[in-house]
Amino acid sequence: MRERLKGFSRLISIEHAREILRGKITHRIVDVEEVDLIAAAGRVCGEDIRAPTDFPAYDRSAVDGYAVVAEDTFGASPTNPVELRLVHRIELGADPSSLPEIRRGEAAEIPTGGPIPRGANAVVPLEHTRRINGRLEVYEQVRPLQNISRRGEDYRSGEIVLRRGWLIKPWHIAALASLGFKSLRVVRRPRVAILSSGGELVEPGEKLAPGKVYNCTKPMIWSMLAFYGAEPIDLGIVPDDVDVISERVSDGLAISDAVIVTGGTSVGERDLVPEAISRIGEIVVHGLAIRPGKPMGFAIASGKPVFMLSGFPVAALIGLQELVIPALEHMLGCRFDPPPRISGRLTRRVASPPGIRTYVRVRVFRGADGEVLIEPLRVTGSGILSTLTRGNGLLVISEELEGLDEGSEVEVILLSPIFEGGEP
Amino acid sequence: MRERLKGFSRLISIEHAREILRGKITHRIVDVEEVDLIAAAGRVCGEDIRAPTDFPAYDRSAVDGYAVVAEDTFGASPTNPVELRLVHRIELGADPSSLPEIRRGEAAEIPTGGPIPRGANAVVPLEHTRRINGRLEVYEQVRPLQNISRRGEDYRSGEIVLRRGWLIKPWHIAALASLGFKSLRVVRRPRVAILSSGGELVEPGEKLAPGKVYNCTKPMIWSMLAFYGAEPIDLGIVPDDVDVISERVSDGLAISDAVIVTGGTSVGERDLVPEAISRIGEIVVHGLAIRPGKPMGFAIASGKPVFMLSGFPVAALIGLQELVIPALEHMLGCRFDPPPRISGRLTRRVASPPGIRTYVRVRVFRGADGEVLIEPLRVTGSGILSTLTRGNGLLVISEELEGLDEGSEVEVILLSPIFEGGEP
Repeated sequence: MRERLKGFSRLISIEHAREILRGKITHRIVDVEEVDLIAAAGRVCGEDIRAPTDFPAYDRSAVDGYAVVAEDTFGASPTNPVELRLVHRIELGADPSSLPEIRRGEAAEIPTGGPIPRGANAVVPLEHTRRINGRLEVYEQVRPLQNISRRGEDYRSGEIVLRRGWLIKPWHIAALASLGFKSLRVVRRPRVAILSSGGELVEPGEKLAPGKVYNCTKPMIWSMLAFYGAEPIDLGIVPDDVDVISERVSDGLAISDAVIVTGGTSVGERDLVPEAISRIGEIVVHGLAIRPGKPMGFAIASGKPVFMLSGFPVAALIGLQELVIPALEHMLGCRFDPPPRISGRLTRRVASPPGIRTYVRVRVFRGADGEVLIEPLRVTGSGILSTLTRGNGLLVISEELEGLDEGSEVEVILLSPIFEGGEP
Repeated sequence: MRERLKGFSRLISIEHAREILRGKITHRIVDVEEVDLIAAAGRVCGEDIRAPTDFPAYDRSAVDGYAVVAEDTFGASPTNPVELRLVHRIELGADPSSLPEIRRGEAAEIPTGGPIPRGANAVVPLEHTRRINGRLEVYEQVRPLQNISRRGEDYRSGEIVLRRGWLIKPWHIAALASLGFKSLRVVRRPRVAILSSGGELVEPGEKLAPGKVYNCTKPMIWSMLAFYGAEPIDLGIVPDDVDVISERVSDGLAISDAVIVTGGTSVGERDLVPEAISRIGEIVVHGLAIRPGKPMGFAIASGKPVFMLSGFPVAALIGLQELVIPALEHMLGCRFDPPPRISGRLTRRVASPPGIRTYVRVRVFRGADGEVLIEPLRVTGSGILSTLTRGNGLLVISEELEGLDEGSEVEVILLSPIFEGGEP
């Protein structure tokens, strides 16, 4: 087993890896839970939601104006206004059945959203009228039904409003609230367990002995998972011991939908993680045609994914974005928003090996003339952390290219807002 | 006062309105609070954060390989390998001072991140070596310092890592954790009070009498504010009464950084909100050159903004995105991420009035050949809710245009992921 993994004889493209991942994960997250409507934004809709009633529940005005009999206005113009008798002022919230009927020659003032009184069949907008001594001059004709929102025009009773799997947004909540929903059934949060492997790791805040390093990848993964609505579970730090790693991953699988193991995924002597995981599940992909992040991969155990991510945050971040988040989408049956992107001009040439998808950390800033410039950051290894604070973008160079020339127009993933003048 | 507001004699462009808004708000949110590192993502950094130590704390390897004396490898090539004596295997986490010194002719196995032993001044990557009976063949020369991350290369002690006002991201957390931070000072959440005006409104979940409508704008605003890290405060629903509105806004200002009042902002007889607010503060903008959302605006009271947003969710959403969120950025001294955008081809002509910035709700989907298509949704008024669930994008048409032709390539704000085949 160890021999087969050594040297990554087959590097798999990230697209292919993702395809394999989707094909192999059989576990699905289907349980739903009821949450208050205002807590539903960012959650995944748990069922097809149908309108319980017509909406609007009655014909109503789409503008501020006057409810009229359309036929009365035919031929009206600024030079030949039609004069109508004002008989009523309709309040928002008035019971439609309590309103007086509008007859030929009459008009009732009506606000946007106000119920159309019986007899009226159109609304003349405010700006095409003038009130003179309690009478109304109308300067433009309206067609029957003009400026009226018909009952059920927005939603017919029984019509699907939101679909299972949709990520719920604030504007969806407006639609649901209009229909009277106060709570909502959403898919439960995915649980993702994180195991940090490496005898060199110390938790932030603890004392750091010489040679040790703080476990920085776990809090990054944790907050990234939380951002996507998942519930992280901490499996702690394990020493470089196949038995311990294997046992801990097993424990993690029992209480989560996916496990992430960081560290120990390379091909050196000490790469115990693949060996440990191969005891529990099938290692499906190990070795990606990407940089950084080549030694990463995943296994499948009981239909759930076990990710082997780098212990280095930059590579782990790419593994999260390219594998873990798509796996969550697959298990939840949803799609998350794409990250924001921006186009700009590359300030210097950047090289990349052919056949390898290369993720270049970049600084996106505005030049003196307002142009968006993209500066590749110089790095010496995947452990270079400061690119994560100095940079605010990620340039993805395709496998087909051997780099990009200075001055190229490129599109990058914007990790943080563009640096404006005066920022570092 | 009422007379001056009638008819919106001056409509102000959204850019100009935003400029005025920034110029008039003198209130700033500066209090900080300490939060656990993993809870800091999405919060606003409360102070310039400096590296407490050099990072890395010692010279370390940037690759998996062998620590060597660079001069020993000079001239090495696949046909003319240099042979070295393997004297040690360095573990990640080893105390640098405990390592044996590397002398000429010697090499020590070293993992990425491992401490460079005394005497060594470069690392030969694994793939340029072969081990033969405990000895090492080196096939490529390395320069002094090659593949070494120098102490302090990432961060020098005292160097600024994150700046006050930056929105904290998961990758920032990785950098901070590496430097040993366990908690972080972040700017307190902005408090935004929401007052719903309108006698026609009923809270979702309550019984709906004929003619009444559910208050759908408040839960939308609530969840939108929460998404941006703000703390919404509910000021309830008020009837159409100037005294009550004015008093409630006053109460809201005392406990919040900004107040949003929805409804009653148009120019009909019943538009009591501007009158009520003018008793407390200065109405600075009322009437925007946008559609929908023309009757919206804002006042300033005690240096804080009081927004007058539409009671209709589509218009209110535009007011939130164009005015409220920028005001929060201004008060917090931060910038939020821009929304994702996507380009595609317009499926039919869409008209817009010149001089008015028009927000068209669109459906973004993939055509049979994979092309991104953008279909403007037909609407009859700003109250058309279903566009918020049927649509997944917002096309902003500039004031200079009178619409966009069928087949135009346009860029839209993506509100929800693009509809793939099979979706509604």
